[in-house]
Amino acid sequence: MLCLKEINPNVKNMKNLDFFMICKRARQITEELRQGAKKPYQQVINVSSGDPQRAGVKPLTFVRQVLSACLYPELLTRDSLPADVRQRAQRILGECVGGSVGSYSAAAGIPGIVHRLSEFISQRDGGIPSDPENIYISPGSQWALQNILNLLVKADGPLRTGVLTPGPGHRVTTVSIMGLGAVSVPYHLDEDRGWELQVEELHRALEEAKGICNPAALYITNPGSPTGQVQSRKSMEEVIRFASEKKLFLLADEVYQECVFGQKSEFLSYKRVLFEMGSPYCDTVELASFHSASKGFMGECGLRAGYVELVNIDPKVMKYIYKLFSKDSCAPVLGQIALDIMAKPPQPGDPSYPLYHTEIQNIRNTMAHNLKRVSEVVNSLPGVTCQPVEGGAFAFPRVHFPPKAIQKAEELGMKPDTFYCMKILEEVGLLLSPGCDFDQKSGTHHIRFCVLVSEEVMEDLLQGLSCFHLQFMKEFS
Amino acid sequence: MLCLKEINPNVKNMKNLDFFMICKRARQITEELRQGAKKPYQQVINVSSGDPQRAGVKPLTFVRQVLSACLYPELLTRDSLPADVRQRAQRILGECVGGSVGSYSAAAGIPGIVHRLSEFISQRDGGIPSDPENIYISPGSQWALQNILNLLVKADGPLRTGVLTPGPGHRVTTVSIMGLGAVSVPYHLDEDRGWELQVEELHRALEEAKGICNPAALYITNPGSPTGQVQSRKSMEEVIRFASEKKLFLLADEVYQECVFGQKSEFLSYKRVLFEMGSPYCDTVELASFHSASKGFMGECGLRAGYVELVNIDPKVMKYIYKLFSKDSCAPVLGQIALDIMAKPPQPGDPSYPLYHTEIQNIRNTMAHNLKRVSEVVNSLPGVTCQPVEGGAFAFPRVHFPPKAIQKAEELGMKPDTFYCMKILEEVGLLLSPGCDFDQKSGTHHIRFCVLVSEEVMEDLLQGLSCFHLQFMKEFS
Repeated sequence: MLCLKEINPNVKNMKNLDFFMICKRARQITEELRQGAKKPYQQVINVSSGDPQRAGVKPLTFVRQVLSACLYPELLTRDSLPADVRQRAQRILGECVGGSVGSYSAAAGIPGIVHRLSEFISQRDGGIPSDPENIYISPGSQWALQNILNLLVKADGPLRTGVLTPGPGHRVTTVSIMGLGAVSVPYHLDEDRGWELQVEELHRALEEAKGICNPAALYITNPGSPTGQVQSRKSMEEVIRFASEKKLFLLADEVYQECVFGQKSEFLSYKRVLFEMGSPYCDTVELASFHSASKGFMGECGLRAGYVELVNIDPKVMKYIYKLFSKDSCAPVLGQIALDIMAKPPQPGDPSYPLYHTEIQNIRNTMAHNLKRVSEVVNSLPGVTCQPVEGGAFAFPRVHFPPKAIQKAEELGMKPDTFYCMKILEEVGLLLSPGCDFDQKSGTHHIRFCVLVSEEVMEDLLQGLSCFHLQFMKEFS
Repeated sequence: MLCLKEINPNVKNMKNLDFFMICKRARQITEELRQGAKKPYQQVINVSSGDPQRAGVKPLTFVRQVLSACLYPELLTRDSLPADVRQRAQRILGECVGGSVGSYSAAAGIPGIVHRLSEFISQRDGGIPSDPENIYISPGSQWALQNILNLLVKADGPLRTGVLTPGPGHRVTTVSIMGLGAVSVPYHLDEDRGWELQVEELHRALEEAKGICNPAALYITNPGSPTGQVQSRKSMEEVIRFASEKKLFLLADEVYQECVFGQKSEFLSYKRVLFEMGSPYCDTVELASFHSASKGFMGECGLRAGYVELVNIDPKVMKYIYKLFSKDSCAPVLGQIALDIMAKPPQPGDPSYPLYHTEIQNIRNTMAHNLKRVSEVVNSLPGVTCQPVEGGAFAFPRVHFPPKAIQKAEELGMKPDTFYCMKILEEVGLLLSPGCDFDQKSGTHHIRFCVLVSEEVMEDLLQGLSCFHLQFMKEFS
């Protein structure tokens, strides 16, 4: 029988996320509750991931109406759906092979949808052109990222391929990098300055990688996940110059581009800044920019669709990108349709616009409310500091644990933030993510929770967190 | 800029499918027709893939009704949907996190659906137990296969990992194997005996691999794709004994299990035969069995969902399988729901049963008609022989090209069957797949087309093929 010794060493090297252990306990607790166990809570509130619909945010009606009409075109013959829903569904069905969402699409996606995504990108970027040939739709942006990483990894050199990744950063990305046999080279964001990215830190990280691996790419999340900062144009220009000088492929995870909340913050895409910097950057720096139907206000995580736009890639290399995406047939067609609506939402004058506008505004209002409450409540807790959430979907507060808590965690063989997350799950029924999964700076501890949740869930969360935290600090003081 | 030299050598090694070139030309022709070009046909008929809805097969009403109600639960409040549709949708929504198909599910899939898949498997296999913990839903069965292959590949030994694959076999599988840095070791199916798998040929292939690679797995498709044979119990037992003796991981692609048409053919799963062989096989031979919502009568390719069931895997290794599936969040939730319906279709007495039964029966009748017609027409063409299609979704006739045709193809730098497919596309508007993409035996030539198509498409296909072929043979005789 296949034993551990015999499996792919790259797969074996994949980082163990403490989150999996916490999730496992959450599933057990849910089952215990189902079987009638008495606990101080009725259900587990899961705010560990960026999954708004899980946490009470309602789906957008227009999205669901178009999707259901595409699936069951009989609905198009009835007057119960708004005219623009029916028109959209009809147009998309006309673009599906065989007129059905049940057929495979082209490997990169339904051509009409890919085309409209390119228009969306161009409009977002103040008119900078976007070529549909450079866009690939995939079952989620992380999956597109894996295909691009796969292209960059070389197993045959004396050194492994390195990818510079933010600390704290997206936990699954580092796991994927390891799974491909590459090495993640963390650069630290400056927590005290609102998680700013300092270009000196990029230089330090690159220097430290010398002789250990062969850095080929720089991965950025903007707006930051889990850190919530929004990069300034100046900072992005520094990053681009650095990538250009060091010949690094730029991987820009921009899935939270719609979620910008800071009064002075504005989302600028890496592609836009790159093009506005002019030559030599605009035509040499290689860039892959990722976006998704899962993140942002649409929040359709279950549909599984994202896309990547590629910039400045050698046409000979593009052929291999086509091959990589082709081997997996195509992205889910219904997710592709969600991306179509993201690219072209209802416009003023359309029958669905008033409701669509109201729903988006409600989510914005909820976010404003939630962020205000997080800032008030979390920062008032002893030993907790939370940088302002300028964008994204997460709060990532730092917890300064009392020495006794650290000691207790050690006795249990756990990291302090994992210990904290296990305990809050057990006692209050709150499922959070521990900072140790996110390449946080050594010696610091954090917890992560989603803020793109309904106001009710947010109040339950903050109340649970406050009660638990005060008790925790008392217990270990 | 990243040049070809610098990309992942495994990706660079991925086989070039001639099919991509033919598809590219098909897209151009479609565009030319759209712009008013005059050709002897109005549209390209694409029968190159196993994609029934593309080729005029209607989706199953029950599937589409349940999916649309899950997406837009407002539909549940109306009486226009049958009661069992509403019940099914309500049950599934109750199992979705946050009551929405827009939330991520567990990495392996929605637990209720995984559980019902295990019941379906157990019932299919005459009561042999199936543990839900061993089932992972993924965005298509090929994608699950890639995760399992990824586990088996070792890049650090002196020899590459080998996977025994059928010739002719599934073209994307061999591409995936190469992309992972492994080696595909072809074993040939015996065309003259209806594409039978001969165990002596497995021994020969394994022997030939000695010193070249380190074979770790044996990949089987049953019913065969593109070859259409259905394995007998005796043949499967031989394969299992061989895998056991040679310590090979058995990868059983059983996505066409529902599509068995031969009067004397019966689908038996590898798991069933393995268990009915008793010790030592039933508790030592490692097996991964793949199934899909894309194939079979449901034919929902665009939803992207399949699953793998794992048998006899060390629990320590199962942890890494969990990791591999976790890094990609989860399979599309709507595809998961299609699998739920595949596992538990409407039953006699249910309001939707009569229509469901009629629709399935219509597809069966269409298949019976199509296979009869294929056998009559294709075998009557000069220089063409087609083995009987006992199962699956493809006909894979052999074409004996006249020497002048082979010479002409050579002049054009093409393989003969690619030349044939390019020419039939250009002249008749038929998009077929060339046999050279499928690891056919050297010196033989084939074409592949889908037979799970509407009767109208089948008649157009056979008429186009006949006219073209007679003209072709005349031209090159």
